[in-house]
Amino acid sequence: MAAALTLAQRIARSGVLPLCRRPLAWGRAHQEPPGPLLTPCRAFSNNKILVELDESSGVATMKFKSPPVNSLNLDFLTEFCISLEKLENDRACRGVILTSAIPKIFSSGLDITEMCGKSTEHYAEFWRAVQEMWLQMYSSNMVTVAAVNGSSPAGGCLIALTCDYRIMAENPKFSIGLNEAQLGIVAPFWFKDTFVNTVGHRVAERSLQLGSLYPAPEAHRFGLVDELVPEEKLQEKAAAVMAQWLALPDHARQLTKSMMRKAVLDRLVAHREEDIQNFISFISKESIQKSLRMYMEMLKKKKS
Amino acid sequence: MAAALTLAQRIARSGVLPLCRRPLAWGRAHQEPPGPLLTPCRAFSNNKILVELDESSGVATMKFKSPPVNSLNLDFLTEFCISLEKLENDRACRGVILTSAIPKIFSSGLDITEMCGKSTEHYAEFWRAVQEMWLQMYSSNMVTVAAVNGSSPAGGCLIALTCDYRIMAENPKFSIGLNEAQLGIVAPFWFKDTFVNTVGHRVAERSLQLGSLYPAPEAHRFGLVDELVPEEKLQEKAAAVMAQWLALPDHARQLTKSMMRKAVLDRLVAHREEDIQNFISFISKESIQKSLRMYMEMLKKKKS
Amino acid sequence: MAAALTLAQRIARSGVLPLCRRPLAWGRAHQEPPGPLLTPCRAFSNNKILVELDESSGVATMKFKSPPVNSLNLDFLTEFCISLEKLENDRACRGVILTSAIPKIFSSGLDITEMCGKSTEHYAEFWRAVQEMWLQMYSSNMVTVAAVNGSSPAGGCLIALTCDYRIMAENPKFSIGLNEAQLGIVAPFWFKDTFVNTVGHRVAERSLQLGSLYPAPEAHRFGLVDELVPEEKLQEKAAAVMAQWLALPDHARQLTKSMMRKAVLDRLVAHREEDIQNFISFISKESIQKSLRMYMEMLKKKKS
Repeated sequence: MAAALTLAQRIARSGVLPLCRRPLAWGRAHQEPPGPLLTPCRAFSNNKILVELDESSGVATMKFKSPPVNSLNLDFLTEFCISLEKLENDRACRGVILTSAIPKIFSSGLDITEMCGKSTEHYAEFWRAVQEMWLQMYSSNMVTVAAVNGSSPAGGCLIALTCDYRIMAENPKFSIGLNEAQLGIVAPFWFKDTFVNTVGHRVAERSLQLGSLYPAPEAHRFGLVDELVPEEKLQEKAAAVMAQWLALPDHARQLTKSMMRKAVLDRLVAHREEDIQNFISFISKESIQKSLRMYMEMLKKKKS
Repeated sequence: MAAALTLAQRIARSGVLPLCRRPLAWGRAHQEPPGPLLTPCRAFSNNKILVELDESSGVATMKFKSPPVNSLNLDFLTEFCISLEKLENDRACRGVILTSAIPKIFSSGLDITEMCGKSTEHYAEFWRAVQEMWLQMYSSNMVTVAAVNGSSPAGGCLIALTCDYRIMAENPKFSIGLNEAQLGIVAPFWFKDTFVNTVGHRVAERSLQLGSLYPAPEAHRFGLVDELVPEEKLQEKAAAVMAQWLALPDHARQLTKSMMRKAVLDRLVAHREEDIQNFISFISKESIQKSLRMYMEMLKKKKS
Repeated sequence: MAAALTLAQRIARSGVLPLCRRPLAWGRAHQEPPGPLLTPCRAFSNNKILVELDESSGVATMKFKSPPVNSLNLDFLTEFCISLEKLENDRACRGVILTSAIPKIFSSGLDITEMCGKSTEHYAEFWRAVQEMWLQMYSSNMVTVAAVNGSSPAGGCLIALTCDYRIMAENPKFSIGLNEAQLGIVAPFWFKDTFVNTVGHRVAERSLQLGSLYPAPEAHRFGLVDELVPEEKLQEKAAAVMAQWLALPDHARQLTKSMMRKAVLDRLVAHREEDIQNFISFISKESIQKSLRMYMEMLKKKKS
């Protein structure tokens, strides 16, 4: 049974090469232009996420490449948070595009195997990592753009919701939504708050109760995604949107973003431990465990 | 002058036959399938509402049949709350469809005669009953669908707003809205909160100030109702929508609904007595009484 | 360095002729009809705003005529607040239409010269005047209609947002929005709250971060303005909308408006001094001063 690790311990474990912090800040408000650039593009990768930073534009891309479906298990989330924190602290980086390296799937959401038949300590560690991912993303000082190039249920949708802008491939076979209720589980209040901030109370109330997954065109119609483009144009469009957002002075944009999201962020920060305990007691119920086991068996049968 | 009755006293008085509670729970999450059904459909009725429970589907229908216009007087509200509570406590019942047995009208809203020329005690009892109806409906564990088969002003609209889903006959002669301001009275904060949760702040602000009644097509356009169908398809559609909602595990759906509505429910619970006092002091004003008398006389002239 | 003036001192200074308060109240709820009218239309003006009150309809028009662009400097704001307060206290006046006497511009927003190179005391006085304008408008008992007959960025947009209804000339060359972020400054929380109440959280989050200015047709599409009409029909339409709102009993309409806006109004009232200190410390930063100077120089070059 693994004891809970601090983020620092996880970083030590992860083996991700630290980005050298260069005193670059061009494009950031109220700072001097940079010296000549030696390295136009740097890449680092661990196991599950490929990070590329284009220093000429200040834009990083985080590509999820955790087969088969980019599910959010503890390792993925740890690597995600470490990578994001590096970028956040890298003055050369002002924006990040999230996308998938796996065809047809952006992310399948929280990994059910992490919630099934594990110890209380494991559940706590896992849930803390999910919270951490949300807290970092929703409060990021960087411009965050989701280039949703495949289906994105549950936790996958949540990642997209934390971004400043969501572009989705206009393929109606790709769907997105917080479908937790379909699995017999309940999206926590901060998933709900993020969703309400994006689509409003009524759409959230209906969609969360039904656990609705929406094909891309429908998701676009009520604002769950901001824009649809043909899949082959997705990365190009994400770069163009990013350039538009980066044209604004960072300082004013960051303060504005913080003002818009503070109330919802504060709410989880204030109730973080309580939320972990709620998750543990809910997920430990035999009825819930049974539901999840049945769901996993159904998934296995589908594959074979 | 009638003293205020508790709900228990009202139940004792009402003469509605109690539903036998059968240990049925099929379709409810985490419970065993039921034994063979002996009674496929049970009906009970008092004076103003016809209740039919289809045990094979777990769906009840509450049909308002209080001529001429299903106005919400104290008797109607009492019968409504008792019937709803029975269904809520009946494990054979998972959803309820609200509709009208009277052509062209769903419900005309609060009965003005209950607010005019009566005693303070009567106003208090009446307002408590209105609150009770809203509290029970907005917090119901059942799936609630409004099949709005006629006009639905003021309190009639409120009933529809408390449901999980609103389907309306697509007849543009049928209108719906919170038109209290037209009568010189003010929708209380919990009417307003329910409205804002459904149509958003801006539409609510404008509509409540103007006391707007919207023809069905317009009401649909901004989300006051979720769907329009030809009147002859209304009950069929309500059943189909209900089946879709009942396909979800009850437990997850109920917790999600509660999460979405808790803040607004808690607000009335916390200020219930204060809200009653506000209603009494407002409605007791001579200027308001005069307005209501004029309005009733206008209605009487219209009839003759 | 001018010491802060109280509103009373400003009124004394302003030289605006006080409206005689006549005990007229026709159209107001629960009051007697007026006697015969002696003066069908009264006008008063100071320097920057022309006010006309049509006593037959109870509707005043406030026309901004502060060339070149109706920017909101301290003198304009003081005159605005005094004029509005007079109308508010004039029982002959039930509604006010805000519009511009200057072609192509409604108002260019806060005057940057008031925020650049001035004393702390001046910043405090200026900011208090901006707050006062917002507090008076957003809480006005009168029906307020914005007839937006030109572009309306930043503070100009805010004035429109405080109204009960916004009609805009359908000229796509006219734009409207809270574009503060484009200048490197941040809209304060009460600008944001007013914006969220009008267009919802998501549109506000995106628009405020990008400092978006929307051409009239786009602003209409997501509800930043309620209606578009050809420019030559704007005043006529504003009068028609006003008549529709004035058809409601004042008392019920006013209580409803107060209920909708109270939370947001209370928030500034509770944090007013803190908000002034925040403004001063933000605007006094050398980096912000530099940004504003650059922006003003850019504007000067554009003109010449």
